[in-house]
Amino acid sequence: MDVVRELRRALGDGRVLTRREDLLPYSRDASYFEGPLPLAAVIPGSVEEAADVLRIANDAGVPVVVRGGGTSVTGSSIPVEGGIVVSTYGLGSIEEVRPEDGYAVAGAGVRLGELDEALSRVGFMYPPDPSSASAATVGGSIATNAGGLRGVSYGSTRCWVLGIQVVLPGGRILWAGGRTLKRSTGYDLVSLFLGSEGTLGLIARAVLRIAPRPEAVGRAVAYYGSLEAAAGAVAELKRRGLPLLTAEFMDGPSLAAVRDSFGIQVPPGAEYMLMVDVASTRESVSRHLEEVASVLSSASPVSIETTVDPARMEELTRARRGLYPALLGRRSPGQLVVSMDVVVPPSELARTMDEVRSASRSAGFDAVIPGHVGDGNFHPTIYVDQGAMGRARDLILEVGRIALRHGGSVSAEHGIGLEKRELLAEEAGAWLEAMRALKASLDPKGIMNRGKMLEVSQGGRRGAWDPG
Amino acid sequence: MDVVRELRRALGDGRVLTRREDLLPYSRDASYFEGPLPLAAVIPGSVEEAADVLRIANDAGVPVVVRGGGTSVTGSSIPVEGGIVVSTYGLGSIEEVRPEDGYAVAGAGVRLGELDEALSRVGFMYPPDPSSASAATVGGSIATNAGGLRGVSYGSTRCWVLGIQVVLPGGRILWAGGRTLKRSTGYDLVSLFLGSEGTLGLIARAVLRIAPRPEAVGRAVAYYGSLEAAAGAVAELKRRGLPLLTAEFMDGPSLAAVRDSFGIQVPPGAEYMLMVDVASTRESVSRHLEEVASVLSSASPVSIETTVDPARMEELTRARRGLYPALLGRRSPGQLVVSMDVVVPPSELARTMDEVRSASRSAGFDAVIPGHVGDGNFHPTIYVDQGAMGRARDLILEVGRIALRHGGSVSAEHGIGLEKRELLAEEAGAWLEAMRALKASLDPKGIMNRGKMLEVSQGGRRGAWDPG
Repeated sequence: MDVVRELRRALGDGRVLTRREDLLPYSRDASYFEGPLPLAAVIPGSVEEAADVLRIANDAGVPVVVRGGGTSVTGSSIPVEGGIVVSTYGLGSIEEVRPEDGYAVAGAGVRLGELDEALSRVGFMYPPDPSSASAATVGGSIATNAGGLRGVSYGSTRCWVLGIQVVLPGGRILWAGGRTLKRSTGYDLVSLFLGSEGTLGLIARAVLRIAPRPEAVGRAVAYYGSLEAAAGAVAELKRRGLPLLTAEFMDGPSLAAVRDSFGIQVPPGAEYMLMVDVASTRESVSRHLEEVASVLSSASPVSIETTVDPARMEELTRARRGLYPALLGRRSPGQLVVSMDVVVPPSELARTMDEVRSASRSAGFDAVIPGHVGDGNFHPTIYVDQGAMGRARDLILEVGRIALRHGGSVSAEHGIGLEKRELLAEEAGAWLEAMRALKASLDPKGIMNRGKMLEVSQGGRRGAWDPG
Repeated sequence: MDVVRELRRALGDGRVLTRREDLLPYSRDASYFEGPLPLAAVIPGSVEEAADVLRIANDAGVPVVVRGGGTSVTGSSIPVEGGIVVSTYGLGSIEEVRPEDGYAVAGAGVRLGELDEALSRVGFMYPPDPSSASAATVGGSIATNAGGLRGVSYGSTRCWVLGIQVVLPGGRILWAGGRTLKRSTGYDLVSLFLGSEGTLGLIARAVLRIAPRPEAVGRAVAYYGSLEAAAGAVAELKRRGLPLLTAEFMDGPSLAAVRDSFGIQVPPGAEYMLMVDVASTRESVSRHLEEVASVLSSASPVSIETTVDPARMEELTRARRGLYPALLGRRSPGQLVVSMDVVVPPSELARTMDEVRSASRSAGFDAVIPGHVGDGNFHPTIYVDQGAMGRARDLILEVGRIALRHGGSVSAEHGIGLEKRELLAEEAGAWLEAMRALKASLDPKGIMNRGKMLEVSQGGRRGAWDPG
């Protein structure tokens, strides 16, 4: 059977790309991995067309990679052995915005930034906000249980998805969960797809819980000479139950990057920056901000600034969100950038980060470490010269193991993809078999995102590890 | 093999109850179902002892029911064919309270009220708050994905569980998730146990996300002559993004019950009461309360009251939380009380409730209907005379189907248990097989809560339905 001909017959020529120049973008994502060209890239315009694609692929036993915004930094959105890439671009409508019911309904291809804009027009928001929100999609962020800056206050994606419409490999279209704010009807199948990274089926649309935007936001920015001081200050903010919206963290090299790229002034002696937002009310935002500033000041900062000025906040936000692109821009020719993602209980942050820094140095890398310090999640980022990827891979494994030793997890919000399959096996342990059984029951031919996530050679934990 | 002897050898005599008078309470829960006496009731004092129990039961193929506070109103905590009831009473320690890390660690047997008290001492809370919180346990509330009054603002239990330690049927002890606020490591196995009702394994302890208590809470109580007016007012409160903490609802018969039991004054002409709490700050609570009152007033209430007085609020809270016991107290000798639990998108509430009321009347029952109106969840409650249980069962099915027709769910927060197995099959449809495969992979001998949840005779949807 000619799969491409079948796809064209079902969807029309315009939705099935096969020319080399059209396929090239689909062999890459935001990670350092590079895949082969797929057989075809398909852009279904409806859930029914997506079902046709999965039915055709499943009949032919051809692997399928579902792709949202392509912002994965773990290689989860590229093919590893040809097959079909299905873009959710054509499932890109915001279908309902219903504050009175507490939800919005959006197609998988809707970008989070676009959704946030639509919701902000009625005073609401969808809290998960990965740094890549301008490009990341609803479907992709569900598939990786995305976190983001507001994770410290609103939790990660899993708290905000009420229902999903999915297409299973044989082409069956099903809803899990739905348009209600509560549900207790057996195993939580919606959550099964959270973190599934396209290995179970295609998420076509979602019912997302939404929240009123905070009435007023204030920001404190403090610079410290030591990590312990900064981490201690955040712990104290949390102990006091102050209404933190975000608590971001940059180390010296991160600060250098945003200073050069965005003109952010960094005071002398500043090795670490904390950027803490409070979510408050019109009448209370100044007091809350003073309380935050008082705690931050007790930890002997190099300098501290508070602001409720939207323009100043936007300037700082742009710098924080622009950090990863800025880091990418600073690589030398031929270098790859590897941005890791681990998480520990916040009180373990300083110790864990110290160990990560040492391990990086021992491996011959200078790690840049920004993070979402309020929830213990940080992103050691390294520049890797040609020929040094072997060392980098060893370091990725080591960093994951350091996080595990400190009671943390090998992935907070980036997922597993190709990068962390062995680490997932270490963290999941005996659950790996349960996950595989689950996968086999929904995708018996194993066509969905083949070669990813659960598919690490079994046996010796330190066995051959080939990231693709 | 003598299972009881094995259990005694492993746990000691004091932890294995077999006398008829000791077993009697374990054949009942808060539902109208009654089970047979179990073979034994076992109270393990540690996770390891719980593992011994499950290993022994699994080896012998003896069914196991895990029991928390016994507050189930769907029969999920009683045996249906003897076997062993395992109480989580001995797993009752609050092990860690760590506001700086955003979590608390508690044994499955910790009562939610007890947890809330411990957390309130440091200014924090665990948001899920079923009306039965003084008796309901951490383990049971996870197993039913419990909701509660604060569901409208904080979502249900699934948002607040970071990790669980579970014992699988063979006695294996495993952690899913853990002590981190974010995690993206494959399928969300923590959530699998949310709503599992003891059919997969025993939840032994949990890492629970906690939140700062609101700085100030204010309350508005308004009485209306029509349901449409009350529901419309709540919709408008939500559209405006007002910081609702809870939005409770009582109908006329509910009001009569709390008036008689708690001396709550009900103004003449009041058919419906809304009780709306705002979560605010010291400086803003009066303004927020005025804004709420202004919206509630626009919908032509019979009367309205606002208060920030803790004593007055406590009086009303006691009445709301005491409603179900008050309803139980009003039954005639021989009557059973059936409290149903359905949920729809809030904007469907008035229409759905009207249909439910008509269906109840046609079936010969006067339904009392309280609810968590902010999240579309309500609890039609009926008194069932001896011999009328057949009609009551038909009505339960019909009410579930009405909710489904309005885009809702057959269970918001009470779960499935024995009561709603056929309704789960209708709502889950094709997913039922996936759930069963999942169950079979973790509990191959089918010992965990046998006869419940997924176990409805297959085939004809309206086939024989035997609630136990």
